[in-house]
Amino acid sequence: MSDTPRVVILGAGFGGIGAAQKLRDAPVELTIIDRHDYHTFQPLLYQVATDELEPTAVGSPIRDLLHRHDNVAFHNCAVESIDLSNKQVVVEGMPPIEYDYLVMALGAVVNFHNTPGAAEHSFPLYTMKDAIRLHDHILKKLEEVDKNPALVDQGALTFCIIGGGPTGTELAGAMSELLHTELKADYPNLPIDQARVVLYEHSPHVLAHFKPKLRDYAQRALEERDVEVHTGSGVVDVTADAITLSGGEKVQTQTLIWAAGLQASPLTKSLGVELAPGGRVPVGPDLQVKDHPQVFAIGDMASITDGKTGQPLPGLGAVALQAGHHVGKTIEHLVEGKPTTPFKYFDKGNMAQVGRGAAVVELPTGGTLTGSIAWLAWLGVHLSLLSGAEERTSVFVDWGWNLLTHKRGKRILLSDEEHDDS
Amino acid sequence: MSDTPRVVILGAGFGGIGAAQKLRDAPVELTIIDRHDYHTFQPLLYQVATDELEPTAVGSPIRDLLHRHDNVAFHNCAVESIDLSNKQVVVEGMPPIEYDYLVMALGAVVNFHNTPGAAEHSFPLYTMKDAIRLHDHILKKLEEVDKNPALVDQGALTFCIIGGGPTGTELAGAMSELLHTELKADYPNLPIDQARVVLYEHSPHVLAHFKPKLRDYAQRALEERDVEVHTGSGVVDVTADAITLSGGEKVQTQTLIWAAGLQASPLTKSLGVELAPGGRVPVGPDLQVKDHPQVFAIGDMASITDGKTGQPLPGLGAVALQAGHHVGKTIEHLVEGKPTTPFKYFDKGNMAQVGRGAAVVELPTGGTLTGSIAWLAWLGVHLSLLSGAEERTSVFVDWGWNLLTHKRGKRILLSDEEHDDS
Repeated sequence: MSDTPRVVILGAGFGGIGAAQKLRDAPVELTIIDRHDYHTFQPLLYQVATDELEPTAVGSPIRDLLHRHDNVAFHNCAVESIDLSNKQVVVEGMPPIEYDYLVMALGAVVNFHNTPGAAEHSFPLYTMKDAIRLHDHILKKLEEVDKNPALVDQGALTFCIIGGGPTGTELAGAMSELLHTELKADYPNLPIDQARVVLYEHSPHVLAHFKPKLRDYAQRALEERDVEVHTGSGVVDVTADAITLSGGEKVQTQTLIWAAGLQASPLTKSLGVELAPGGRVPVGPDLQVKDHPQVFAIGDMASITDGKTGQPLPGLGAVALQAGHHVGKTIEHLVEGKPTTPFKYFDKGNMAQVGRGAAVVELPTGGTLTGSIAWLAWLGVHLSLLSGAEERTSVFVDWGWNLLTHKRGKRILLSDEEHDDS
Repeated sequence: MSDTPRVVILGAGFGGIGAAQKLRDAPVELTIIDRHDYHTFQPLLYQVATDELEPTAVGSPIRDLLHRHDNVAFHNCAVESIDLSNKQVVVEGMPPIEYDYLVMALGAVVNFHNTPGAAEHSFPLYTMKDAIRLHDHILKKLEEVDKNPALVDQGALTFCIIGGGPTGTELAGAMSELLHTELKADYPNLPIDQARVVLYEHSPHVLAHFKPKLRDYAQRALEERDVEVHTGSGVVDVTADAITLSGGEKVQTQTLIWAAGLQASPLTKSLGVELAPGGRVPVGPDLQVKDHPQVFAIGDMASITDGKTGQPLPGLGAVALQAGHHVGKTIEHLVEGKPTTPFKYFDKGNMAQVGRGAAVVELPTGGTLTGSIAWLAWLGVHLSLLSGAEERTSVFVDWGWNLLTHKRGKRILLSDEEHDDS
């Protein structure tokens, strides 16, 4: 065995990729583990669900990181457990992997808040598969109504979303646009005007973390796009063909999209460390796990406090990416015998798209933008976030094409296995 | 009910799409039925399997045919039976559909020739799902060897193909190129030089229907690309980890790709008409089914004889497309009370690609081309075959990009459900 320090990164989301980008040029042996062989550009998953982007446009091969780097290995497998005391990670189908430094960036799972039926019958939107499943479900509902129009009365064209944060809001606007433009042309014989997109948010406002001016604009922009917005309303029960609202009302729907919260990867429970709310791993200002200075936690599985403001940082891709970069540099410093430094998040702004040409932006200066200028800013920031150069090109081409032609990608069902034997 | 003649097209492959293109401007009520909501560009499926094209590049939404045409309906469902005496089609999930004119273009299914284990363990390449399944299987084998290199000795990197027709030959060349370029870079720690692509053909030659000069060139070009070519050799038994050859030899492999024959859709058996070899429906020179002058059969489910030469026509996309056009015009003539005319296939040449920059072409004049000029001709003919304008653009952009950069699309696994719970 060589004396080169072994660094293991668990998870190739924004956090893991950020750490890997810094470490592949460092004097370490780097191993990346992920249960997928691709990195997911999560902020745009809703565009996969609504046919604005193809799945491959928001997934980049993790193995691209390996080219021209002899010190990097990637293994496509699930993590089964993390043994902090013996400094090793147990993964599926391989011998345990030992580490000198560990970066935990395994992300989150959906939090259904124990709502009966939600896990079985609702559609989350956190992974690529969630997005493809929702995409295909929407098309299947339209195909079913095409064959049997009476299904409209059973809620087949009633698309409900719970959660008025950025995911729910962006999805609601995009779904309504999809239904009333492309799908209207694709299903000329359907009563598509009876299709409904309904957004429920338990708090009094959509985009609650944005300034009042912006959340009011967002709600107005959604309503202009025929989205029914119900604030102060939660979902307390879900079945395959109906939901029950917190006020007691029952709504017939075959589609409830769950955009109402995440919790840390369940693996955190077995770490033997005290956890923060949501099962997140608390870390110090240097992103180190308490009592384990060679172990770091970042992204949606960590509870991170900003080194500059002392405030908890939000679960954003930009935070995870910057935290990953910081951890990568920190490990390089530790290997060289240098001290660690606290992580400071550089806030580039907070934004959400409500529809084509409509977005809301909170600038780091305190200013705000709405409308098409905000939308261009939204576009620019997302493009700059995309991790690979090729990726950026491909998404940009897709987007540009859609903008110019007002046409989406391909409205085709690839995951449908039902007819396979016919 | 109106008096407008009702035309039903079963299947939206080359044949069905060809007929639909002619009929959507005719004074008829047109209904198209397909079990997928997309048309598959079958000649390029092998490029989906080998990561040169994305699935959506070779699938176009059938509903695009509906835009700006009030007389066309599409239903995405499987055909359960065809009742020629009562002039109706029974489909899944809808009332039976009555017709005045019927175009049967339901294609084929793979013919395993009763080879034990072939249906369970081999990988056909006839549908989009076949191509995606094979694509993901190849990547999974590499991931498995990455985690456990000993699997190479169990044939995990031995990729066998049975059938040296165009599909098997094109696939063999493309797979070998994929393994020795992109995947070699993606899996730097793998013994990828031990990966084998082996092509078996029971007759004495690959591309047996081509002229001797061309089939010799093809075999040489494959061997230059490290494909092991075994002619005069069939497969008589298949298990999950081995195949038995007709000579008795057993080969350890976890991948047998079945490119050795098709038979007509099994629905033909219930038509009550006498069938030609391979279960195909024999049709007259006007493509009409015997005793049913308002019923037509085209494409892989029909046995068609050329009206010019009297020879049986091959199962090519170009033949099906032209036959579809002919049937569309014939139905329009019948509606107008005009006589039918015999179908004459216009042969644009016969071609196959063996690798990047290498193809074989038999010109309709009797001349031949090989090498990069043949490859450009191959490219041009396939581009001209593609059914939609947008399609043509998207595939062309993908191809151009790949050619310039020697880079493929995305080597990512989207259909893998194994790790979903982790």
